[in-house]
Amino acid sequence: GVWMNLGSKIIAAMPGVPSEMFVMFNEQVKPKLLAAGIGGGSVFIQRKINTFGWGESQVEAKLMDLTRRGHIPEVGITVSDAVISLRILARATTLAEANSQIAPVEKTIRERLGELVFGVDNDELHEVVMARLKETNRTVATGESITAGLVANCLSKVPGASNHLMGGIICYTNAVKIRELNVPADLITKHTAVSAEVAKAMAEGIRKKFRTDYGLATTGYAGPTGGDDGTPAGTVFVAVSSHEATKVTPFTWGGTREEIQNRTAKLALNALRLEMT
Amino acid sequence: GVWMNLGSKIIAAMPGVPSEMFVMFNEQVKPKLLAAGIGGGSVFIQRKINTFGWGESQVEAKLMDLTRRGHIPEVGITVSDAVISLRILARATTLAEANSQIAPVEKTIRERLGELVFGVDNDELHEVVMARLKETNRTVATGESITAGLVANCLSKVPGASNHLMGGIICYTNAVKIRELNVPADLITKHTAVSAEVAKAMAEGIRKKFRTDYGLATTGYAGPTGGDDGTPAGTVFVAVSSHEATKVTPFTWGGTREEIQNRTAKLALNALRLEMT
Repeated sequence: GVWMNLGSKIIAAMPGVPSEMFVMFNEQVKPKLLAAGIGGGSVFIQRKINTFGWGESQVEAKLMDLTRRGHIPEVGITVSDAVISLRILARATTLAEANSQIAPVEKTIRERLGELVFGVDNDELHEVVMARLKETNRTVATGESITAGLVANCLSKVPGASNHLMGGIICYTNAVKIRELNVPADLITKHTAVSAEVAKAMAEGIRKKFRTDYGLATTGYAGPTGGDDGTPAGTVFVAVSSHEATKVTPFTWGGTREEIQNRTAKLALNALRLEMT
Repeated sequence: GVWMNLGSKIIAAMPGVPSEMFVMFNEQVKPKLLAAGIGGGSVFIQRKINTFGWGESQVEAKLMDLTRRGHIPEVGITVSDAVISLRILARATTLAEANSQIAPVEKTIRERLGELVFGVDNDELHEVVMARLKETNRTVATGESITAGLVANCLSKVPGASNHLMGGIICYTNAVKIRELNVPADLITKHTAVSAEVAKAMAEGIRKKFRTDYGLATTGYAGPTGGDDGTPAGTVFVAVSSHEATKVTPFTWGGTREEIQNRTAKLALNALRLEMT
């Protein structure tokens, strides 16, 4: 990188590779700029509150008084693959002042949204779930049809995941669901593979087979076509099995095949998060 | 969207959502602009040739005469997760003329790089592999350690994948490799789980268990730490098993944990592609 003082101006040049640029900006450029008094004594900070489980309009309806134009601090809503984030933006003359604008608003959001809130700032669902598995020293395995390995892959992104993620079965056919996850064949005949009953049997099957604390299963139609019986693409079921019980969450997503897969993986991770709270 | 003629100017406004914008631009704005004679009778087109298997500098060394500054058409190299793409950029007064600049250069690149070339333009490895599985009516299953489901998930992104991807086993522990993929325990003791021998046994194990034409396996250290024996993070082995033989490809990647996982998934998909040619 390059740092140049040109009279009253500062020029900071960083590499174009984003990962290198971020490190250099955060570790070197930003502290030097702040030390040089750049910013004119004003502070601008953001706090993101990440939620999963409701749609954007439902979340917004609960927070109308905060998201209205002119509210201080400013509160905005963003959506990324079914994760709804509230962005609280504070401008003040000191960091302490900016933080004191944010704190009560964050508290109100948390009170109103309760267990929908899974993290802050850059926290992702799979990181929160893996952190909780580590804290409680629990293990998980996945039985994945519609997501085809995506749930396990998300969990595996966290360093040290192998102590808690034992593995999984990707069961893209009925034969594999029956043979590898011990889903009763007549359950599939009676309810189809995309049903609450089969999701439940898959989650129980993977938990027993992999001898884990939790079994996590996904089934559904990713599209572009749905089931032969007219069930539309986007229809999904996720299930979490624990030593105590198995819970099934049904959902119907819109979106492309890949969006439906990504959102269903998040739905499964969120179901496990709620099971562990 | 909005289309406005303001004197000699045209204003086209499209939605900010990228997927909506692309469709509207390609289907409506672009044809109208071309019909209106915008572009002043000059054509600017790009052809991307996508390769996998060599590093950027190796590819560049083979194509020095084409990538030099001032060459017509212009040839550039880009890298994205170990996929090296050659971009041929042609400017001419007609489309036919631009295409005739590109054709001989594409031919030369293909002759020099041979089986490294897997596709053009937006083709991705997993799409090419799934297309080939469809053409030949073959099936595949994955046994995934380091990639934890990513190889199967990539293949599942293609509509209709379920006729060719039977599923897989994510084996994040030695116990699962032994129990579910029939990897001999003493093979792991002797060579460690990150070895050519174990990759081979995993690919054979998954092919037999899922009764598929191909078995595809991955094992390695994603990092940040490597093996207890000093093997560095980034050391990986992928294997493809067919009815005839099992081939192992060793590789050592640099990069973050996620980059190593992504690149290893591509290495596995590429190994299957080469097996099917």
